Amino acid sequence: MRIAFLGLGNMGAPMAQNLIKAGHELTVFDLVAASVDKLVKDGAKAGRDAADAVRNAEVVVTMLPSSAAVKRLYLGDGGVLAHAAAGALLIDSSTISPDVSREVATAAVAKGFAMIDAPVSGGTAGAAAGTLTFIVGGEAAALERARPLLEKMGKNVFHAGASGAGQIAKICNNMLLGIHMLGTCEAINLGTRLGLDPKVLSDVMAKSSGRNWSLELYNPWPGVMENVPASREYKGGFGTDLMLKDLGLSQEASQSAGVATPLGALTRQLYQLHSGRGYGALDFSSIVDALRAGA
Amino acid sequence: MRIAFLGLGNMGAPMAQNLIKAGHELTVFDLVAASVDKLVKDGAKAGRDAADAVRNAEVVVTMLPSSAAVKRLYLGDGGVLAHAAAGALLIDSSTISPDVSREVATAAVAKGFAMIDAPVSGGTAGAAAGTLTFIVGGEAAALERARPLLEKMGKNVFHAGASGAGQIAKICNNMLLGIHMLGTCEAINLGTRLGLDPKVLSDVMAKSSGRNWSLELYNPWPGVMENVPASREYKGGFGTDLMLKDLGLSQEASQSAGVATPLGALTRQLYQLHSGRGYGALDFSSIVDALRAGA
Amino acid sequence: MRIAFLGLGNMGAPMAQNLIKAGHELTVFDLVAASVDKLVKDGAKAGRDAADAVRNAEVVVTMLPSSAAVKRLYLGDGGVLAHAAAGALLIDSSTISPDVSREVATAAVAKGFAMIDAPVSGGTAGAAAGTLTFIVGGEAAALERARPLLEKMGKNVFHAGASGAGQIAKICNNMLLGIHMLGTCEAINLGTRLGLDPKVLSDVMAKSSGRNWSLELYNPWPGVMENVPASREYKGGFGTDLMLKDLGLSQEASQSAGVATPLGALTRQLYQLHSGRGYGALDFSSIVDALRAGA
Amino acid sequence: MRIAFLGLGNMGAPMAQNLIKAGHELTVFDLVAASVDKLVKDGAKAGRDAADAVRNAEVVVTMLPSSAAVKRLYLGDGGVLAHAAAGALLIDSSTISPDVSREVATAAVAKGFAMIDAPVSGGTAGAAAGTLTFIVGGEAAALERARPLLEKMGKNVFHAGASGAGQIAKICNNMLLGIHMLGTCEAINLGTRLGLDPKVLSDVMAKSSGRNWSLELYNPWPGVMENVPASREYKGGFGTDLMLKDLGLSQEASQSAGVATPLGALTRQLYQLHSGRGYGALDFSSIVDALRAGA
Repeated sequence: MRIAFLGLGNMGAPMAQNLIKAGHELTVFDLVAASVDKLVKDGAKAGRDAADAVRNAEVVVTMLPSSAAVKRLYLGDGGVLAHAAAGALLIDSSTISPDVSREVATAAVAKGFAMIDAPVSGGTAGAAAGTLTFIVGGEAAALERARPLLEKMGKNVFHAGASGAGQIAKICNNMLLGIHMLGTCEAINLGTRLGLDPKVLSDVMAKSSGRNWSLELYNPWPGVMENVPASREYKGGFGTDLMLKDLGLSQEASQSAGVATPLGALTRQLYQLHSGRGYGALDFSSIVDALRAGA
Repeated sequence: MRIAFLGLGNMGAPMAQNLIKAGHELTVFDLVAASVDKLVKDGAKAGRDAADAVRNAEVVVTMLPSSAAVKRLYLGDGGVLAHAAAGALLIDSSTISPDVSREVATAAVAKGFAMIDAPVSGGTAGAAAGTLTFIVGGEAAALERARPLLEKMGKNVFHAGASGAGQIAKICNNMLLGIHMLGTCEAINLGTRLGLDPKVLSDVMAKSSGRNWSLELYNPWPGVMENVPASREYKGGFGTDLMLKDLGLSQEASQSAGVATPLGALTRQLYQLHSGRGYGALDFSSIVDALRAGA
Repeated sequence: MRIAFLGLGNMGAPMAQNLIKAGHELTVFDLVAASVDKLVKDGAKAGRDAADAVRNAEVVVTMLPSSAAVKRLYLGDGGVLAHAAAGALLIDSSTISPDVSREVATAAVAKGFAMIDAPVSGGTAGAAAGTLTFIVGGEAAALERARPLLEKMGKNVFHAGASGAGQIAKICNNMLLGIHMLGTCEAINLGTRLGLDPKVLSDVMAKSSGRNWSLELYNPWPGVMENVPASREYKGGFGTDLMLKDLGLSQEASQSAGVATPLGALTRQLYQLHSGRGYGALDFSSIVDALRAGA
Repeated sequence: MRIAFLGLGNMGAPMAQNLIKAGHELTVFDLVAASVDKLVKDGAKAGRDAADAVRNAEVVVTMLPSSAAVKRLYLGDGGVLAHAAAGALLIDSSTISPDVSREVATAAVAKGFAMIDAPVSGGTAGAAAGTLTFIVGGEAAALERARPLLEKMGKNVFHAGASGAGQIAKICNNMLLGIHMLGTCEAINLGTRLGLDPKVLSDVMAKSSGRNWSLELYNPWPGVMENVPASREYKGGFGTDLMLKDLGLSQEASQSAGVATPLGALTRQLYQLHSGRGYGALDFSSIVDALRAGA
């Protein structure tokens, strides 16, 4: 299949590589030339720009950092809707505002494209291993067209509902992730300061009702678990500023819906403070440092 | 074995029943006569009072609602330390202040008893099914003496550390449980208000990084999961006031240790408000009602 | 002076009345016909619509409930910029997003109007008594043109800075107001539950470092102070939903500026919950009921 | 009058000096010898220990840092109740737990002493200037005996209620103070980051409904106000760790009373984090640095 892949950051690049490995013909574009070069070495063709990249594609996949970037790339003059081939399937895997997601999809469908929002869960490790979870919003038929490709990049594909529903589910999920990560940091820090061994305490809670993804698979305390960011000085992984962005989306959504999310709001505030102290590029599990400071 | 079991509430009664079923000889006592009567029908002997119940026991198990109750029962005039048989093994499964736990254990050991703190995780359902998790603090040798009995009442037995460590680990675990329960309620409520189906959203998050015990095994949204309190109007289960008590213990511990637990503190506040509105006796997953009110 | 006054709600109506009393010639418009009728009885002329009302005005004053309403009224087809007389002075006293405020002012200035944002502090009582505080953003020259009118409606006029600065200062002020109102409720409720007399406690704190506007002039506890909403079942005053709106503006501003406002965020959450329970139309000091519930 | 003054820290020393200036005969004691020496230069006699200092006193004044210290000094073997002269008036100006305050007063009264709790508001500047506010709990008759002395050290004397009520009112006041200080920091930081001048914004809010003691008399932003800790790098003033202690007392009180104080709880958490970062000895208005970090 001829696929255009736009947005080759920490997540986009390994996703594109998995499509190449699966035998697809990729044309890629990114504003950072070095990112394009790397994919070309892996076997992709380089588009001169977004318009050039999408021109002959049967499927367009995008992985971008913000609502504004998605809006511009799809709706702008040199953008996807203006230049993609008639009838192409558009898959946006960015995590953005559900409202923007719906706005773009409505415009796409009006021009005869099929479009789904398909944000992912699983981080850079999942992107590299091809074990991402895709959370999809849009028509079931469009999802079925996309499924064979999604399954090359991920392990699970969920249909959350109509257009925008993928974004909503992703935002809810990541708000919950931020909350239980911070909660897990609080619990381990408290127990450790009261004399427990952080690994013993983590093991006990992982077998008890405190169990959660952060504790079991992504333990934030240095030395408790191998192969997680906490054991490599919080390098790699899912950056603090990305978590801050997703928590911000959750607060915009909750504010516009008139829904209270008190822990979500407080978690966002603490990630804001954490980012302000210079942790923006480090993994989001580094929030444990905010609690340990001065200990 | 001759066992005294003191404290026959929602948790204590089924735990005692499991010991009877396992063939042990129980003498029981509780301030509520009806609770004693029920156990007598199950095959226990009734103690006239605590002193009488413990007099000939090889092992004493206690399951009480507060630090003050434990202190009085063990250290008071008619209490366990004054009347238990020399060398008896004392197992306190109450969830209480680690400081009080250590104080009682120190007094017990000084009088020649072996003592462990062995608070549990798993709720009334786990107590009935004999699948509790015991989180134990104290000497390894005392834990080994207790293990055969604990395994009749539970499935997992963890050694968290020295005396009081069981309490600390339990408090950390339950603080984390309270946080991810409230976080799960916020996420499902937000998604649902934005148009998602609560079951679909729960399924998506349970397969993604939002995964946690509250979401997977104890879903707070009515109708998503069978056999949980949310599907029987929050009756049974682990009461709001018990969660409030445990969150209070976490705040006392964090305050005395000089450790910040911002989400733990806010969760306690919201449970306090929830209890004040008359939800104290309902299951703690009913906190979702505090978010849904007025919707 | 010929003045058009658009937006005759709880705040706008008494402000317009004060301009009439000062001898100005007012043409008014509001989407609610009854509100227009009331002002006509006070001596205003009724505009058929906004365009009609502003056509001959030297000054246009607007008092609207939301950013969207301001944008539509100023920038829309039948709106102020399309129909006001050349060179008119435009005064927007609505509390809205600073970004929208700047956008509208930029468009106005481009068309040759002078425009200031002039949100107010002081509530309905201040509007009626003509003792409002105006917090103004925009050019100093425009403010000087407006000052004689502002001084008929208010007692203090502050120049906060360039266009939009009035909104920013207002939003910061009201976030702080929401925080010390809720804090005051917490303090009085705590002391009262511990046995103090709410009036004695209020008097003590008002003479000590706890002193603040909510405590001294707007005491939230029923019976402590006369002539405040707390003493008339929270009727009148500054509505919960208006405070919720302003707190929402503060959170949008803090999110877009990358600034942490943890107490502001939590206060907004608690006002959201309070509004959800049916208190939206009651005075914002009724938040004390959220703390007292179930006591 | 013969007065014993025990506890000569940042607050106690200037209070004692004001009593000397007023012509009273003071015998003083403190665990820090240098503090005693300083007062001796000012004209006090040095007690060899607490027992010696109180032996001949008609009035005993104490100013200590914690509940535990007060309990030990009054109830211990070499303590005040064991050695003070029959009928002496005991004035405890420490800020401590209301429960401990009542316990000590009950013991004092049982031995024939009169005792009041008389914690203060006004900080070290107020102590030096003799303008403290005393918030008194206890019998009115005891307060009247104390009043002439209190008026030498302070400007306002309030009777909050029965024994312990002084502590309760003080704790409520200081919780509210912590809340509006942090809220004031959030508001000024937000406005400043959005382009306003911190002094202009402070002036606007001080004339509007955001007005509060922290903003008007103790502005936390460097350079806005002279003669406040913010303008001398947060040296002097009321230390972060003292505010943290008082917020901790408020949380103990609210927990034991079953009352929610969500902003109080969050403020305590943020002061805990702030103290952990090394700000414990700096003035509590330095919390603004926690918000500005990384800006």
